[in-house]
Amino acid sequence: MKRNILAVPVRRMVGSAGESLQDLVAVEEPLEIRIGDRPVSITMRTPGHDLELAAGFLFGEGILRSAGDIEKIEATGENVVRILLQPGADADTERLERNFYMSSSCGVCGKASIEAVHATGCVILPRNGFAVAAEVIHGLPGGLRQSQAVFDRTGGLHAAALFDSNGTLCGVREDVGRHNAVDKVIGSEVLAGRTPLCDKMLLVSGRASFELIQKAAVAGIPLLAAVGAPSSLAVDLARRFQMTLLGFVRDDRFNIYSGEWRVR
Amino acid sequence: MKRNILAVPVRRMVGSAGESLQDLVAVEEPLEIRIGDRPVSITMRTPGHDLELAAGFLFGEGILRSAGDIEKIEATGENVVRILLQPGADADTERLERNFYMSSSCGVCGKASIEAVHATGCVILPRNGFAVAAEVIHGLPGGLRQSQAVFDRTGGLHAAALFDSNGTLCGVREDVGRHNAVDKVIGSEVLAGRTPLCDKMLLVSGRASFELIQKAAVAGIPLLAAVGAPSSLAVDLARRFQMTLLGFVRDDRFNIYSGEWRVR
Repeated sequence: MKRNILAVPVRRMVGSAGESLQDLVAVEEPLEIRIGDRPVSITMRTPGHDLELAAGFLFGEGILRSAGDIEKIEATGENVVRILLQPGADADTERLERNFYMSSSCGVCGKASIEAVHATGCVILPRNGFAVAAEVIHGLPGGLRQSQAVFDRTGGLHAAALFDSNGTLCGVREDVGRHNAVDKVIGSEVLAGRTPLCDKMLLVSGRASFELIQKAAVAGIPLLAAVGAPSSLAVDLARRFQMTLLGFVRDDRFNIYSGEWRVR
Repeated sequence: MKRNILAVPVRRMVGSAGESLQDLVAVEEPLEIRIGDRPVSITMRTPGHDLELAAGFLFGEGILRSAGDIEKIEATGENVVRILLQPGADADTERLERNFYMSSSCGVCGKASIEAVHATGCVILPRNGFAVAAEVIHGLPGGLRQSQAVFDRTGGLHAAALFDSNGTLCGVREDVGRHNAVDKVIGSEVLAGRTPLCDKMLLVSGRASFELIQKAAVAGIPLLAAVGAPSSLAVDLARRFQMTLLGFVRDDRFNIYSGEWRVR
């Protein structure tokens, strides 16, 4: 397994006094994802859980609909994951082409991705069937911190965690990129054959952007909670999908931006 | 001018008590950048300073070498910026194609971008000519906060600011995307004809990723300071470019990961 944390020599300045010591930084390296022999994406990620990252990414893009679409998934090099799809699986290569163009410069075009979400049939999440108590929400950041205690010693990692409605942690993944952390934790469920995730909620350590709402919606997740702020488009999309969106979840407080009826 | 902040109704929960009020969120919308009539990028950004964002993005990609390459730059719609290059300017369209492919899924391939930096001739920053006192560094976050006080009421914006070696603020831009904030503040200098920025340092509000190091290096900026943590690749690249990289710049402390000789 590749290292995901690296020790580097630093000079630490406190006021005008300096001392030399070792600091831990999160590793950032490119991962190439191939369908067959065709490269379809290169993303900068923290090594580890690469198969889950690849599966989660392709699932979020609507290329992979479930674990049943995968014939084989394997690491074919330190920084390459190769996926063979089942003969029946209909990889939408046109969408791939479109997304290559659309997502240059780290953004993803709203229109293209809204289409992608429509295409996967997850536009409107069911209003009933998932509800959570406010005190369970208050406990989520603590649950995440506990599971992060060993791994994140770098201060440089984003985390994404899945919980059930009782606040029990079902999975957590970390990465220098927050979209990667979400792809990894959703990808682990895809590979285990447990999607859609209608009975789970997702906590992210940072802000809630449009892209994270999209990934959660495709996975059927009814509630997204962010420790940070949401963007306007995140709020807009969450309402459209009838997803519950919580922001600033910390210190026994949170804001409900959408889908209030799921919070008891 | 488009709104960059939006008021949305929220339910604020404190413990088990809730109240309904208005919250401010940062606006996130797609911007399409065109060279002539050819769309070359769509990025999710906070509206405002769109011409600077387009100029900074193309400059960082090595497509635009200076303001002199621009015949005309204009907004041709709410979310579209169109640039006409001078007849003599040699837009490397092959690199554009390559980057479309390389940057899908929000990452940028290390190799491709390192090549881009080499191509623009900024690989090795001069060792001499820029130096800064530790106490000036300690003052940067405060300088940034002061200039943010009016704008960032959302908790959802990244900031990028340029300072001279005395700690005087030369420019600050904010955006939901940190790479956009950097593109905007560098783009404002590109449009003013003030690149390369050999006598400036750049402060970013979040973490230092590989991508930010690359953008700073292309602009000739000798020192990058981040309020958050750097990634392993950020440290690696900064050393290769002989750039000074500071992390965790806050509370009268910081770590020097590279280029210690520029800190007095």
